[in-house]
Amino acid sequence: MSEVYAARRERLRERCAAGGSATALVSRPANVRYLAGAAPRGAVLLLGKGTDLMLCAGPLDAGPLGAPPDDERPDEALRIQTLPGAGDGRGDPAVAAADLAVAHGAESLAVEEHHLTVARHRAIRSVTPRLRLTDLGGAVEQLRVVKDEEEISCLRIGAEIADQALSELLESILVGRTERHLALELERRLVDHGADGPAFATSVGTGPNSGRRGHRATDRRVEEGDFLSVCLGANYRGYRCEIGRTFVIGTSPADWQIELYDVVFAAQRAGREALTPGAEYRDVDRAARHVLDSAGYGHGLSPLTGHGVGLEIDEDPQLAPAAMGKLDACVPVTVEPGVHLPGRGGVRIDDTLVVRPEADGGPELLTITTKELLAL
Amino acid sequence: MSEVYAARRERLRERCAAGGSATALVSRPANVRYLAGAAPRGAVLLLGKGTDLMLCAGPLDAGPLGAPPDDERPDEALRIQTLPGAGDGRGDPAVAAADLAVAHGAESLAVEEHHLTVARHRAIRSVTPRLRLTDLGGAVEQLRVVKDEEEISCLRIGAEIADQALSELLESILVGRTERHLALELERRLVDHGADGPAFATSVGTGPNSGRRGHRATDRRVEEGDFLSVCLGANYRGYRCEIGRTFVIGTSPADWQIELYDVVFAAQRAGREALTPGAEYRDVDRAARHVLDSAGYGHGLSPLTGHGVGLEIDEDPQLAPAAMGKLDACVPVTVEPGVHLPGRGGVRIDDTLVVRPEADGGPELLTITTKELLAL
Repeated sequence: MSEVYAARRERLRERCAAGGSATALVSRPANVRYLAGAAPRGAVLLLGKGTDLMLCAGPLDAGPLGAPPDDERPDEALRIQTLPGAGDGRGDPAVAAADLAVAHGAESLAVEEHHLTVARHRAIRSVTPRLRLTDLGGAVEQLRVVKDEEEISCLRIGAEIADQALSELLESILVGRTERHLALELERRLVDHGADGPAFATSVGTGPNSGRRGHRATDRRVEEGDFLSVCLGANYRGYRCEIGRTFVIGTSPADWQIELYDVVFAAQRAGREALTPGAEYRDVDRAARHVLDSAGYGHGLSPLTGHGVGLEIDEDPQLAPAAMGKLDACVPVTVEPGVHLPGRGGVRIDDTLVVRPEADGGPELLTITTKELLAL
Repeated sequence: MSEVYAARRERLRERCAAGGSATALVSRPANVRYLAGAAPRGAVLLLGKGTDLMLCAGPLDAGPLGAPPDDERPDEALRIQTLPGAGDGRGDPAVAAADLAVAHGAESLAVEEHHLTVARHRAIRSVTPRLRLTDLGGAVEQLRVVKDEEEISCLRIGAEIADQALSELLESILVGRTERHLALELERRLVDHGADGPAFATSVGTGPNSGRRGHRATDRRVEEGDFLSVCLGANYRGYRCEIGRTFVIGTSPADWQIELYDVVFAAQRAGREALTPGAEYRDVDRAARHVLDSAGYGHGLSPLTGHGVGLEIDEDPQLAPAAMGKLDACVPVTVEPGVHLPGRGGVRIDDTLVVRPEADGGPELLTITTKELLAL
């Protein structure tokens, strides 16, 4: 794996050089992990001409989040420097990194202004007043959008785990159990099947809570006739996927439930079918949104109908009406339209897919649990 | 409860006025929650002369983290303004708040420079170039250090829940189970007993992993003769407590285990006994650390032996060698010295206590599970 991380750092170095800054400081944890294979708490990465250095606030296993598992040790090709570090702001690895950059002759340093706080930026300035600080912007995030096959394989395994956890839940008795307990059981099953943990807080919504995006599980119990919507994902080696399904509890769904389900299903399919290399982000969003709009459910929709996934559960691109940009092959995204009718509940259907050219069979569906309306 | 939040905001307003800024922008989520009773994702609080306004990035129930439970609705006395908001940086509530401050005649605005990123700060500046931005610093964090009895009551309930979850685990068979499963079972039991969730990722360490601060549970199984150390806490209405215990697995502990346990126990007791109003933070740390040092375990100790708890699991004060400041009454802190011997394991004992004057009986121990060395 070491070559993978070195190659990523090399690509970033090329971008920085093109942007006029030979040295970069990466502080956002997911970005550090992407470039170094691990992100011990508080660690930053200093990338200079031929210098790759990770600076940590303390011994790798002494942070409040503790020792990383062995598969999360930083790339061995990296030099690692540990600061004695105290909790009071002295020993900030970002400040130490800037200091080192100057010692190595750097005149400018590109920092992640969307991650560094004003206070840390000021601390860097005061320690290295002659260093010109520039903005690295979302350069690492942009590198992260297109995944390699190793990354996609982690997402694929994570999706299989989530599918398994969900299918086991569906075999158990649901009526009378609380949203909170169903969510916990799903999370336990994710770990049983090999996940490092849930990718995000598992969402289970019943009755009036069903269909709400990111609903936090409550003590409401599942009742006959409810919609039950579930959204979960596995974290597998740092990669996070997402699956959402809506079921109906009892022997037969009501007419309004069938009708609503069909509309959301059609919207989700339209979104999935719009996933081709070169498609505009907003056109994918529009494909799904248009179906909901036309059926009269345009009011109160979520501001996005999908988003990228990877080392974070919500990363670029955003599939939203005003999003600018085009899909590439090997970009994993969710397609997750939903409708929530206040007081009654709703439907949300959410898949993780990888954009692939038509010659390769079109979008690769990672979350394969059926999308038929199941009555449980 | 509404008066509580209004009173907290009033105290902050007084501090700001004393600091020369009549208007403040609070963006750090735990601070927003402290002052408003809830912190919808991305919400900020604008406090001006007689104006209390919460600005949210979208409808309260449309964020990626979803709808808050009813006990986390913002204070009803607050005006709430929702921005149409897109995911692309437009519609940042902090920027909109600064704009509003200017519209209300503010000339300066105190912002949380330790929380706002450079990019957001710049966005505020570009929208309101004439507004003087100052630093609110840790003003809200300072208000949060001393808790009222309502807050302490939430911590007390959370500690009872954690005690219950732990005592149930001890009644079950442990040998052969993995750290990860024990951690998940503890978290399920926390929720069973009424927690909103775990206060932090439950840590279970066995054998060589025991005694490591913040160890992340692995697939290692509990074996005869192991030390087993567990650290967990409940989140109850947003308040987070912490308890850590170390046990020995099997009929009788080895001599080195007894010896090590006795030393850490003595250190932890010394720390607890040093908790009095007026005690220097570093003296509490020194009391515990000195016992470990004298017994020859001074090498590789954690940089702190305790910390404040509340709406965050790790907040002010820090009980560390270089920490400046004195304890007040009604400050809840952990006392959690530990020793880890690489390759062998170790001991960590962790309580949450509230500092109380001697006249009131001295420190109030919230986590009451026995600290005898149990052989399980």
